Amino acid sequence: MMYRGRIRQLAQELRRRSISSLLVTHLPDVRYLTGFTGSNAALVVVAEPRVSARLFTDGRYTVQAKREVQGATVRIAPKSALAEACSWAEQHATQCGFDRAQTTVASLAAMKKAAGKRSFFVPADGLVAALRVVKDAAEIELIRHAASLTCSLYESLLGWIEPGMRERDIAAELEHRARMAGVESMSFETIVAAAERSSQPHARATEAHIAPGDLITLDFGVVMNGYSSDMTRTFAIGYGEKPVPSREKRRWVEQREVFEIVLAGQQAAVNAVRAGATCGEVDRAARSVLEATGYGKYFTHSTGHGVGLEIHEVPRVGKDSKDVLKAGTVITIEPGVYLPGRFGVRIEDTVLVTEDGAEVLTPVHKGWMEL
Amino acid sequence: MMYRGRIRQLAQELRRRSISSLLVTHLPDVRYLTGFTGSNAALVVVAEPRVSARLFTDGRYTVQAKREVQGATVRIAPKSALAEACSWAEQHATQCGFDRAQTTVASLAAMKKAAGKRSFFVPADGLVAALRVVKDAAEIELIRHAASLTCSLYESLLGWIEPGMRERDIAAELEHRARMAGVESMSFETIVAAAERSSQPHARATEAHIAPGDLITLDFGVVMNGYSSDMTRTFAIGYGEKPVPSREKRRWVEQREVFEIVLAGQQAAVNAVRAGATCGEVDRAARSVLEATGYGKYFTHSTGHGVGLEIHEVPRVGKDSKDVLKAGTVITIEPGVYLPGRFGVRIEDTVLVTEDGAEVLTPVHKGWMEL
Repeated sequence: MMYRGRIRQLAQELRRRSISSLLVTHLPDVRYLTGFTGSNAALVVVAEPRVSARLFTDGRYTVQAKREVQGATVRIAPKSALAEACSWAEQHATQCGFDRAQTTVASLAAMKKAAGKRSFFVPADGLVAALRVVKDAAEIELIRHAASLTCSLYESLLGWIEPGMRERDIAAELEHRARMAGVESMSFETIVAAAERSSQPHARATEAHIAPGDLITLDFGVVMNGYSSDMTRTFAIGYGEKPVPSREKRRWVEQREVFEIVLAGQQAAVNAVRAGATCGEVDRAARSVLEATGYGKYFTHSTGHGVGLEIHEVPRVGKDSKDVLKAGTVITIEPGVYLPGRFGVRIEDTVLVTEDGAEVLTPVHKGWMEL
Repeated sequence: MMYRGRIRQLAQELRRRSISSLLVTHLPDVRYLTGFTGSNAALVVVAEPRVSARLFTDGRYTVQAKREVQGATVRIAPKSALAEACSWAEQHATQCGFDRAQTTVASLAAMKKAAGKRSFFVPADGLVAALRVVKDAAEIELIRHAASLTCSLYESLLGWIEPGMRERDIAAELEHRARMAGVESMSFETIVAAAERSSQPHARATEAHIAPGDLITLDFGVVMNGYSSDMTRTFAIGYGEKPVPSREKRRWVEQREVFEIVLAGQQAAVNAVRAGATCGEVDRAARSVLEATGYGKYFTHSTGHGVGLEIHEVPRVGKDSKDVLKAGTVITIEPGVYLPGRFGVRIEDTVLVTEDGAEVLTPVHKGWMEL
């Protein structure tokens, strides 16, 4: 029912643009429109005279496609699913849209060959992405569920972490707990980065041991029913009852200072989120806090990105972006400061855009904390 | 040194084809040529008058790129790494090759715009893939290491699995052990599929409990230092001292029968591997065993694929493939039989092609086994 509705919405958009059919090959788009989760699929949506959809996949997915696919008929292609899809489209429509950002130059050549008409394919970019950017109530529930589990995993892990553990131990324990809680997978490779490794925004968990005085960046998310969450927390390993060693005092103080600035920037960006704001405005809210304190040049990435069936999807919450936020869009807010070779801080929430603000879906403690 | 050698080899191939430079954007290719493991990169290799290479990435990777990249200079692009790479290439070469299978239609348009000359880019497909298909001694050692760990993880897990566990518990335990053994990640989502779920080649681990009489397909691999392994074993949960219930007798016997046929097909394909054989011949060796016993139509995929920096890379070991195997190539041999709604069997090894045969890199027990 839900899938049929989405296909009808897409068909309506196609008719509005006078495109009689669309070829969908980006797998998250295929999943969004039909429920199919296999690794090989080409979906053709015909918009007129009546709406129809046919999904082409291969023999590995005979059973799975039958069970999963809704709103489209299924064809198991003995050779190329893509080629069969194109030749079927050519018989059922006068032209076919395709997404230039999701189609390789080689695929386009194969598509043209299979359809047998050079002018059959016309650019039609981002049509499914435009539907996906506003989540419906069921999708929001799924993301809320993934985000909520992310928070409880984080809280339970905090009670377990101790100085002396390796970054890798922490990542392994977190992922095991996530698996046992029923996640499909992690949203991406879990980042556990302590000490100077936290100055690399995308550091991998290493064999290094965490120690008093370290800042630790933990960035992870889980996939449940296809939908992702994404959250980062930075916390410190404290010195406990012992005094801070004098040679560490400067770093210890500066870490806290940078932390509070990043937190203020992150909160400013969350406060800037509402339907009607541009992504550039939200980015600016965070960035201006960091710039005002002289740390702007160490904030080396965008403020956030859309989250849904993909861990990175539209919109990009970046400098100068004029994309207007809509109620129902889910984005991350994740400014960071990275002092090369020294340390880094990033704080990230997954938030739902609402008519008059933002609902933070990862509302677990994010203030300064010493373990 | 190794990276410089690979870039020189690539430059030589470019000169042979009279292409003065190459744009490399496929991340495993970038890693192969420079060691860079970040998630955003555009590498330009200039072949003449003298060989040079420059890697473009973004500010998230300032520290990491400096540490990792060898054989190329690094440029942190404030805006688009791809656009800067194209405009730099245009200043240093008369034309630039690109891989049509790794370039989207949208990227090609952006590339042309950045270079400012429409005729600057020329198709040059699979040049890095052609280098990567023959592994050097260091690469073989890394794959051997990943494959060997795969075997020991499997053996240790077998001693732990018990009837009543959920598929998910098994996947979680395996992945936790892998993490603790130091893997970077799993090669792909671990498949644990029991009973009728094993009839789906790409089943996910579910909440279902394994029980006596079930066949279990376990398909997994690990990534170590960027290189993957891939192995599948199918084993049974036996009835122990109890007799096979009479209503299960037929299934129990047929499972064993299908198992032995798949094993024979798998062994036949391994035996057919040697430098000089075509991929089609290897596929045929497995397929003809299954066809001779009437199960050919239930073998719904190719016999195997290349393994290296990617879990699926060239060559495809499929029906009718005329690709000739070379010594130093690593492939999987993984025929399977899937009886829809009933059960499935797949047996897979990762093997190294040698001058006169194959070295099985996953030499752990693969015969019939009842737990």
